[in-house]
Amino acid sequence: MTTQLLQARAGNITPEMEFVAKRENISAELVRDEVATGRLVIPANKVHLAGRLEPMGIGLATTCKINANIGNSAVTSDSESELTKLHTAVHFGADTVMDLSTGKDIDSIRKKIIDSSPVPIGTVPIYQMLEELGGTIEDMRPQHFLDMVEHQAKQGVDYMTVHCGIKLEHLHLSTHRVTGIVSRGGSLIAKWMMAHRKQNPLLTHFDDLCAIMREYDVTWSLGDGMRPGSIADASDEAQFAELDVLGECTMRGRELGTQVMVEGPGHIPLDQIQMNMERQQEICDGAPFYVLGPLVTDIAPGYDHITSAIGAAMAGWHGAAMLCYVTPKEHLGLPENEDVKQGVIAYKISAHAADVARKRPGAQDRDDALSRARFGFDWNEQFRLSLDPETAKAYHDQTLPQDTFKSAHFCSMCGPKYCSMKITEEIRVMAAEQGGLIQLAETPE
Amino acid sequence: MTTQLLQARAGNITPEMEFVAKRENISAELVRDEVATGRLVIPANKVHLAGRLEPMGIGLATTCKINANIGNSAVTSDSESELTKLHTAVHFGADTVMDLSTGKDIDSIRKKIIDSSPVPIGTVPIYQMLEELGGTIEDMRPQHFLDMVEHQAKQGVDYMTVHCGIKLEHLHLSTHRVTGIVSRGGSLIAKWMMAHRKQNPLLTHFDDLCAIMREYDVTWSLGDGMRPGSIADASDEAQFAELDVLGECTMRGRELGTQVMVEGPGHIPLDQIQMNMERQQEICDGAPFYVLGPLVTDIAPGYDHITSAIGAAMAGWHGAAMLCYVTPKEHLGLPENEDVKQGVIAYKISAHAADVARKRPGAQDRDDALSRARFGFDWNEQFRLSLDPETAKAYHDQTLPQDTFKSAHFCSMCGPKYCSMKITEEIRVMAAEQGGLIQLAETPE
Repeated sequence: MTTQLLQARAGNITPEMEFVAKRENISAELVRDEVATGRLVIPANKVHLAGRLEPMGIGLATTCKINANIGNSAVTSDSESELTKLHTAVHFGADTVMDLSTGKDIDSIRKKIIDSSPVPIGTVPIYQMLEELGGTIEDMRPQHFLDMVEHQAKQGVDYMTVHCGIKLEHLHLSTHRVTGIVSRGGSLIAKWMMAHRKQNPLLTHFDDLCAIMREYDVTWSLGDGMRPGSIADASDEAQFAELDVLGECTMRGRELGTQVMVEGPGHIPLDQIQMNMERQQEICDGAPFYVLGPLVTDIAPGYDHITSAIGAAMAGWHGAAMLCYVTPKEHLGLPENEDVKQGVIAYKISAHAADVARKRPGAQDRDDALSRARFGFDWNEQFRLSLDPETAKAYHDQTLPQDTFKSAHFCSMCGPKYCSMKITEEIRVMAAEQGGLIQLAETPE
Repeated sequence: MTTQLLQARAGNITPEMEFVAKRENISAELVRDEVATGRLVIPANKVHLAGRLEPMGIGLATTCKINANIGNSAVTSDSESELTKLHTAVHFGADTVMDLSTGKDIDSIRKKIIDSSPVPIGTVPIYQMLEELGGTIEDMRPQHFLDMVEHQAKQGVDYMTVHCGIKLEHLHLSTHRVTGIVSRGGSLIAKWMMAHRKQNPLLTHFDDLCAIMREYDVTWSLGDGMRPGSIADASDEAQFAELDVLGECTMRGRELGTQVMVEGPGHIPLDQIQMNMERQQEICDGAPFYVLGPLVTDIAPGYDHITSAIGAAMAGWHGAAMLCYVTPKEHLGLPENEDVKQGVIAYKISAHAADVARKRPGAQDRDDALSRARFGFDWNEQFRLSLDPETAKAYHDQTLPQDTFKSAHFCSMCGPKYCSMKITEEIRVMAAEQGGLIQLAETPE
C-alpha cells in the first residue's frame, strides 16, 4: 500500500524511477525529487507493472508526452480493431493510451489492452459504470462509482479521469455557453447533480477514492468537466471555477499519498494559451497538466488534428506536461486506425516542437541529424530519422523511385539545376579554391 | 506610371483600394492611409488588373493572407496540372498564388495562370532568366535580369521575389551553417557573386528594377536568400545581416514609389518566432512580412504542412501579414494537386487562428456560427461552415451515412448515450423545469 509519491517522499528511488531516469537521460535523484513534490507522476498500477508496463514519467522535468485515445463506441468498432489502434499508437510514439470504450465488451477490451500495452493505460471509469447501470446516470449511487474504480484498478489501469471538480453551485455558470458542457463525464455528473440536487458525489467521496487509488497506485487525472468546447466558451468563469476545485483536489490527493495530474482544455485561442498554462501551474502547484489540444479555431472539422496540434505545441512550450491528441475525425465520428496514426504524428510534432522550444537537453539532436542528412543528400538517413519513414519515402519515391535517386543531389521539387543545397555545395567548393568565404568580407565591390 | 502607393500618398482612393476595403469590411480611407505608409500593399499589376484580377490587400490592417506555391520542375508536371493546382488553391482559399515553374514552357504556363487567376500572381524571375541563359548562372549580366523582370511585368505578374538582400560580404556568415543557403534564388546569386567576386547585381541595380516595378505597379517581395533551412540555423547572423539590407531596400523602394513586402523564414523554433516578427517589423518599418511557415521542427518530412502550420499560426499572430504555405511534399518532391489542397487548408487554419488571436473584427463569427450549429446538431450547417465541407461530411458519413443521422443528436464518436452536448440539452430542460440553474447556487448540499 505505497505509491511512487510516498516512496519518493521517504527518499527512496524505486525501480520505476530508475527506469524513467534512464529513458529521459536525467538522474534518478532528480526523478525522485520531482515525484516527491508532485511535479512529476509515474502512472504505474502495480498490476500493470507486474505485466508489460514500461514506466513513463509525466512532468516538466521530462520530455513532453502525448496520449492517444482509443476505444469503441456503441455505434462502431470491436476488440480486434482496438488492439490494432493500440499497436499503431504505440508504434508511432504515443506515450500513454486511454481506452475510452463506451460500447460492447468494455471489460474484455480493456483487459486485452492492458495485457498488450507497454505504455500506461488510462480510463474514464464512469463510462463502464454507466453501461452496467443500464444507461441511466440518475440511478448511480456513490458506491457504484467506488466499485467501478476498484474494479478497474484491479485490472491494472494506470490512471483514471474522474470529474471531481464540477460543483453543483457552478453549473449555472455554463448556462450562457455556446456549447454547454462538452466533457462526457462532466455532463453525466452534472445531470446526476441536477436530478438529485446534491453535490458531486465524486467530490464528496474524494477521500474514499484516494484510498483505492493509493492501494494500486493509480494516478489521478482530475477531469475538467467544464472545459470549453468552443472558442466562444474559452477561459470563462465556469472553466476557472472548476480549476480552483481541481487545485484543492490536487492538494488533498497529494496529502493522501496519491499521484495527481490535472486535465485541461479543450478549445482556446492562441492568445490565451500561455495564460491558461500559467494559471493551472499556479493553482495546482505545478501538478502535471494534461491538455486536450487545445484547438485554436472551430472552423476546420476534418482537420482538427491540425487545429489542435497548433494549440498543443503552444501548450507544451508554456508548461503542459502531456498533450492528449485529437484525430481528424474529432467532432465527426469514432477514429479508425488511420486517424489514430494521423493524430499521433501530429502530436509527436507538437510535443517535439515544445521540447525544442523549452531547450530540453538533447531535444534538438534529432532535428540537427536530420538536417545534416538533408544537406548531405543522404535520403535514406533522412527517411530513417523522420517520424514516419514510410510516408517520407513514399512521397519522395512518387516521382523519383529508382534506387539511384537515393543519393541524388536533388529531388523533384527543384530538379537538378535548382537545388539550393547542391548550389551551396558548389559555392563551398569555389570558396575552398578561392581561399575561403571569409576573405570575401574584405573584397566587396 | 503611378502605383497604389503613389496614389495613396497623393490622398487618392483608387478602385482597387475600394475593392479591398469592401472585401475586408474596413473603410477605404483606412486602406488608403495604410497603403500610403507602406504597411499595406495591394499587388495589382496593371496588365492583370485589366484581366481577371480581384485586388487583394496584404498588411496588418487586413486579415492574415496565405499564399500557395505552384509551378512545375524539370522533373515533373505540365501546364494542365498547374492550372488544376491553381484552381484547387483558389477554391480552398489561397489569397495569392506563386508560379515557381522551373521546368518546360515557363512562359506559356505563366500566361495561362495569369489569364485564369482572380488572385495576385507572384514569381521569382531569376528562374526563367536562368532557363533562357541555358542554366549557367555565371553567364548572367544584370541586363538579363532587368529584361526578365520587364518581360514578366508585361505579362501581368503582380509581385516578384527578388533576392536583393544577400551581400557578398555576408556570404561567409553561412559557412558554418548546417544547411547552408536554402533559397534557390539566394544560392544562385551567391554563386554568381563567388564566380565574379562582385556585389549582388540585384542590389546594385535596385533603382533600375524599381523603375520597371513602378511602371507596371509590380509589388516587391524582397527575398530572403539567407533564410534558415533548419532549426540549427535559425536566427543566425547571416539571416539578420540580410534582414538589415532588406530594411534599407524597403525604404529605398518606398522612396521610389514602389510597393514593398519582405520575405521571412523558414525554420524557426517556437520560442524565437515572436522575436523574429518583431525584429522584422522594426527594421522594415512595418512593411508586410511574408513568411514561409516557419517550420518549428525538422523531424517530420511528409508532414511539414503541419510542422509549419504551427509556426505560421504563431507568426500570423505576432505580425506576419502573409503566410506562404508548405505542403506535405516539402523537402521530398514537387507538390501535386492533393498536396496543394492539404497545404492550403492547413494554412487557412493558421491564418484564421491568427486573426482570432489578434481579435480582428468579425474573425470569430464563423467559429461561433459553427459551434452553434454543432451544439444544435445541425450537421449540414456544420459541414457548410467548415473549411472543407466535403471532407467533413465524408468523415461523418463513414459510420452514419443515412440522411436521418444529419439531424441526429449524436455522432459515432460517443454514440447516443454519451453525447455530452445532448446531455447538456437535457440538463437545460431539467433546469427550466426546476426554475433555472441559477437557483442551484443557493442549494448545494
